[in-house]
Amino acid sequence: LSNSDNELHLSRVTNRPTRRPLLAVIQYDGGGFAGWQRQPPPARTVQAEFESVLERLLGKRVAVTGAGRTDAGVHALGQVASVTVGFTHPVETVTRAMNAQLPEDIRVLEVVEAPADFHARFSAVGKTYEYRVLRSAICLPFERHYVHHHPYPLDEERMGALAPLLEGEHDFSAFAASDETDELRRSKVRTIFSSCLHRNGERLIYRVRGSGFLKHMVRNIVGTLVEIGRGRQRAEWVDEVLASGDRTQAGRTAPAEGLFLVSVDYGAQL
Amino acid sequence: LSNSDNELHLSRVTNRPTRRPLLAVIQYDGGGFAGWQRQPPPARTVQAEFESVLERLLGKRVAVTGAGRTDAGVHALGQVASVTVGFTHPVETVTRAMNAQLPEDIRVLEVVEAPADFHARFSAVGKTYEYRVLRSAICLPFERHYVHHHPYPLDEERMGALAPLLEGEHDFSAFAASDETDELRRSKVRTIFSSCLHRNGERLIYRVRGSGFLKHMVRNIVGTLVEIGRGRQRAEWVDEVLASGDRTQAGRTAPAEGLFLVSVDYGAQL
Repeated sequence: LSNSDNELHLSRVTNRPTRRPLLAVIQYDGGGFAGWQRQPPPARTVQAEFESVLERLLGKRVAVTGAGRTDAGVHALGQVASVTVGFTHPVETVTRAMNAQLPEDIRVLEVVEAPADFHARFSAVGKTYEYRVLRSAICLPFERHYVHHHPYPLDEERMGALAPLLEGEHDFSAFAASDETDELRRSKVRTIFSSCLHRNGERLIYRVRGSGFLKHMVRNIVGTLVEIGRGRQRAEWVDEVLASGDRTQAGRTAPAEGLFLVSVDYGAQL
Repeated sequence: LSNSDNELHLSRVTNRPTRRPLLAVIQYDGGGFAGWQRQPPPARTVQAEFESVLERLLGKRVAVTGAGRTDAGVHALGQVASVTVGFTHPVETVTRAMNAQLPEDIRVLEVVEAPADFHARFSAVGKTYEYRVLRSAICLPFERHYVHHHPYPLDEERMGALAPLLEGEHDFSAFAASDETDELRRSKVRTIFSSCLHRNGERLIYRVRGSGFLKHMVRNIVGTLVEIGRGRQRAEWVDEVLASGDRTQAGRTAPAEGLFLVSVDYGAQL
């Protein structure tokens, strides 16, 4: 890592204009962001930080597409962003140049050449999210921003048995954000490939992989499982909520800080 | 954990005044603090937060003593604080009541009955500190506040071989904070029981256990080892610096965010 990366202007050394699609695997701590998607200032967003670094490096504005539009406070271990550029630098140089300019709460893990028609969001065939619930009596200072602390009794076995009920193709209207329910034109049908809950030490982990997710969908699923774990609802309730298509039926939206976008899957395309 | 802990005023139910020495094992994320020791406002300190919670619970001011006066930005996995109280509540209740009131970046892990003459600092027979240097090219967002990122070449083997040279009883004046060197009245002699450097995945860990430590001492030792690892100084330099007693000879003070007070040892006393 040389200091000269800081001063690298990628556009300067471009010989001829090309159209080169790239994808970047990025990680961020969602705590300091109003989410992925660009918003009017003063909201700080990952997309805006990313685009402004590219603009600084390229000397012109470029649009960056994210695979998942994570909400405010939601973290990403492996978000994918795509961008089409004109320069011909090796991907390792691009990675270093971006990391030298990005704030420390966003890191580019890798930059990869993408197929000509690649689009981070529309080319994705699956996304994996993880929700972390801390079950210990005390939430240690070093994990406080990265788990949802729930030290109260939960019937974890029952929750674990119900999680797979969400697998398959369903209309997830009941698990969509309440501010989306009136927007009837878009389909709320999604396919969940796997949905499972397991214990890892003091953490209860909900891991879900699906074709795509509605706004707040994972957090509403977790909120619903927690209601059942607390014994406030019967086990049949998951099926009833799903069938109802009514957001007011499901559990409360679980807090953002427990949620991580783990990875995005592009199948054979990459 | 019941909600009533939040409203518990420990002083209310005390029948007769007693003098009961307690010690609390506490953990904190040093990033938000100007260190352990109380300072004039607006500096936020761990001691002040701790004392003000006790004052709220007891209805009067009490002095809290910390085993190690960690500097601004330094973390603690197992700091020990002692306090003498008048109430007779079980230690579990005290732990819960404190955690219900403390900010999330400080947690009480455990409260224990202490011997009559116990003093968190003077009764300590040893303290263990750990310094974490991240060696990977990229510092992930989730660890950025808890390591010193040094991705540049280091001769780790050489550093590891030199670390034990600091063991034994020495005058550590050369490793004291520069603002302490003129204060000649207090002895700078300390005993280091163990001093070792090892790799743990992408992290280079310096672990040191000693009778006590001068201000900045661990960070100055790490700074000195890093200078040697970078090849800027010969191996003999460690001995020369130690013998010189001159702060201007040692390496730069390593950044606070890599340092953790791991534990405090009270020998057979507890």
